[in-house]
Amino acid sequence: MTSPDTAPVPVAADPACVRSIGVVGGGQLARMMIPAAIELDLPLVVLATAETESAARVSADTLLGRHDDPAAVRALAERCDALTFDHEHVPQEILHGIEDDALSAVRPGSAALVHAQDKLVMRDRLTRLGHPCPRWWEVRDAAELDAAIAAAGGRAVVKTPRGGYDGHGVRIVETAADASDWIADLGADGALLVEELVDFRRELSAQVARRPDGASAAYPVVQSTQRDSICFEVIAPAPGLDEERQQEIQGLARAIAEDLGVVGMLAVELFETVDGRVLVNELAMRPHNTGHWSMDGAVTGQFEQHLRAVASRALGDPSPKAPWTVMVNLLGGASEDLAAGAAAAMEADAGVKVHLYGKSVRPGRKVGHVTVAGDDLEDVRARAHRAERLIIGRADAAGAPDETAGPESGTAPRPRTAPQDPTDPRSAA
Amino acid sequence: MTSPDTAPVPVAADPACVRSIGVVGGGQLARMMIPAAIELDLPLVVLATAETESAARVSADTLLGRHDDPAAVRALAERCDALTFDHEHVPQEILHGIEDDALSAVRPGSAALVHAQDKLVMRDRLTRLGHPCPRWWEVRDAAELDAAIAAAGGRAVVKTPRGGYDGHGVRIVETAADASDWIADLGADGALLVEELVDFRRELSAQVARRPDGASAAYPVVQSTQRDSICFEVIAPAPGLDEERQQEIQGLARAIAEDLGVVGMLAVELFETVDGRVLVNELAMRPHNTGHWSMDGAVTGQFEQHLRAVASRALGDPSPKAPWTVMVNLLGGASEDLAAGAAAAMEADAGVKVHLYGKSVRPGRKVGHVTVAGDDLEDVRARAHRAERLIIGRADAAGAPDETAGPESGTAPRPRTAPQDPTDPRSAA
Repeated sequence: MTSPDTAPVPVAADPACVRSIGVVGGGQLARMMIPAAIELDLPLVVLATAETESAARVSADTLLGRHDDPAAVRALAERCDALTFDHEHVPQEILHGIEDDALSAVRPGSAALVHAQDKLVMRDRLTRLGHPCPRWWEVRDAAELDAAIAAAGGRAVVKTPRGGYDGHGVRIVETAADASDWIADLGADGALLVEELVDFRRELSAQVARRPDGASAAYPVVQSTQRDSICFEVIAPAPGLDEERQQEIQGLARAIAEDLGVVGMLAVELFETVDGRVLVNELAMRPHNTGHWSMDGAVTGQFEQHLRAVASRALGDPSPKAPWTVMVNLLGGASEDLAAGAAAAMEADAGVKVHLYGKSVRPGRKVGHVTVAGDDLEDVRARAHRAERLIIGRADAAGAPDETAGPESGTAPRPRTAPQDPTDPRSAA
Repeated sequence: MTSPDTAPVPVAADPACVRSIGVVGGGQLARMMIPAAIELDLPLVVLATAETESAARVSADTLLGRHDDPAAVRALAERCDALTFDHEHVPQEILHGIEDDALSAVRPGSAALVHAQDKLVMRDRLTRLGHPCPRWWEVRDAAELDAAIAAAGGRAVVKTPRGGYDGHGVRIVETAADASDWIADLGADGALLVEELVDFRRELSAQVARRPDGASAAYPVVQSTQRDSICFEVIAPAPGLDEERQQEIQGLARAIAEDLGVVGMLAVELFETVDGRVLVNELAMRPHNTGHWSMDGAVTGQFEQHLRAVASRALGDPSPKAPWTVMVNLLGGASEDLAAGAAAAMEADAGVKVHLYGKSVRPGRKVGHVTVAGDDLEDVRARAHRAERLIIGRADAAGAPDETAGPESGTAPRPRTAPQDPTDPRSAA
């Protein structure tokens, strides 16, 4: 079950055993840590802004407060041996204070986390380390932006370095005027990140877990497909990826985790280019949407693995339990009643695993996900997409997987010269 | 993945969808329902006697009160659409009141649950229904007990009909004097159950889930081995059981669930006799220790399945995900520090799944369990038992599986004429 490529490196456990973990943020990632924490008997305290937040609804121990309120985050740190995150938006100054005062072990630490918080810092560091990135430029005004666009070939992606997610803070531009609002908002030290438009065939994601002592475990590389710039479908493992390429990409993710000193789960989102390279797109230092498949599909799910890494426990086996696992996100749609849809999906297919986040439904909002595992990718994909349609209440529930949902099963996807979804802001259409 | 033998019968979902569930009792079974409830977004309220109880420690919503306090159980019922149980000790009168007043759907209902509460009622009903039982007698005084012992061949098992568990309330006797204390305690209507000593080769357990509308799903029949009258090891599926016998036993469990009107999980504990019959030993109408393997080893774990049945949702696929899954209980031993032992076990084996119940350690107390799944039963058993020894802190952690832990792997066990453990109170030794 454990192959040499995926087995954690055996290293003695940290003697300073973490007995309680604080999670900053009350979203679905914090929520999904809770079942794993219960089974491991690792007490978890969640810092949420309201008792109605996804994780706060089901947490036995919740502090109310904001992630950017130093007093709230310090109060959490004082109650826990280690601090970790539902998202990457905690200000560096707050983390520095906790680290300086040794209130709690911050995992990942501020020096690692900054690479998931600031895209310019990430691009600069990865480039110095020699890890493959799209061509990129740091620009401070309209003239620099126009020069970068010209260097990129007349069109480019411009990103705000901080605060972006799910397509927010990302724009395709042909002239500096297309980002004049962002330029106007730049402060004295402000800058924007410009990247070349990558000609990619598909997006991949490589996840590794890393302990404080450097032991790591790599999950199978998966294929991720977006809809409206939000992760929609994940196929584990990525179809058509040969063993050599898989190990190369896992090695890249391990190297980034090591180079940046990540503790916990790291997701490296990648472009597979039409000319056969992989380029780093984004980093996330927490459980990630592209790893939800592992909750049902791997020996050790990513939420358990994250807690084990943060708590300095031995890492679990990341091997898949079935030849194929497909995850499809539930994005808020027509129906506000997910329970009825979930009942219908479970009635239609006894093998579908339904995960609901306890969030109110708004169009496009991530409110849950489904997974299906099995031997036949085409069958597994069709079942997962049918379940998604039944739960979300889309009219075409009986039909085939959505055309925008990615490549045909079992084969490498057809080459594309732009993101798959024509509504994607980065699209060429 | 779904075979015709295990697939739930497709029946339309109950239109009156259950949106919240109350669990009477705060033990580890209630605790292990919580992760499943979180993923399904089914709000759970736990009635526990103290905030330090296993489930209360991790529940986001706990009522404090006793299972035999009518006001406490009614308060729980008033908050929930359906009521279910961590144990079977809620008095019938309390359940009747809730059913009569329609405060909440009681699942399983009192009329079913009485068969898991009173062993005389169970033996009488199963015998009338023609389901296979050991020979048994109801006795009210010493003379009747001596007569029953004589009829059973000079030795017999005597049981208190109510309140027994894990070997409590069970005694091997050769004369009425051996149970004189129990006879003295019998009230005017009191009686004891006497059963023949069954010559069995091993114990099996058959679990089915049943919805209110009669739809059911049967898990693979498993082999269970006791230590000190407490379940210690479970092998799923039971080694050496041919498909015909497996289906026959699953059919028996389904028939009992249907005949008694069970809702939720039913465990039928069975003796496999040396002459090739199966006889019903005990019934439990809740998730059961012999089903813990399914949390990691089946597409749908028993705790999720129980909630789905109680909530009138479609039942999930009970198929195993690996050829073999072995569960070993963690029974309190030398070490009070389970966290350190668990860390050692996880360090030694990345594939072991550790479940801790958050209970203080007392000798022999169930404080957790481990499971290991894989293709090679001998390897899987050895790994599960090694993990158990590392966590419990037994000195022989490096050795082979305990001699008392059951049959050799991969083969049918050698015939036995008594329970396997010489310290078992029912033992012939």
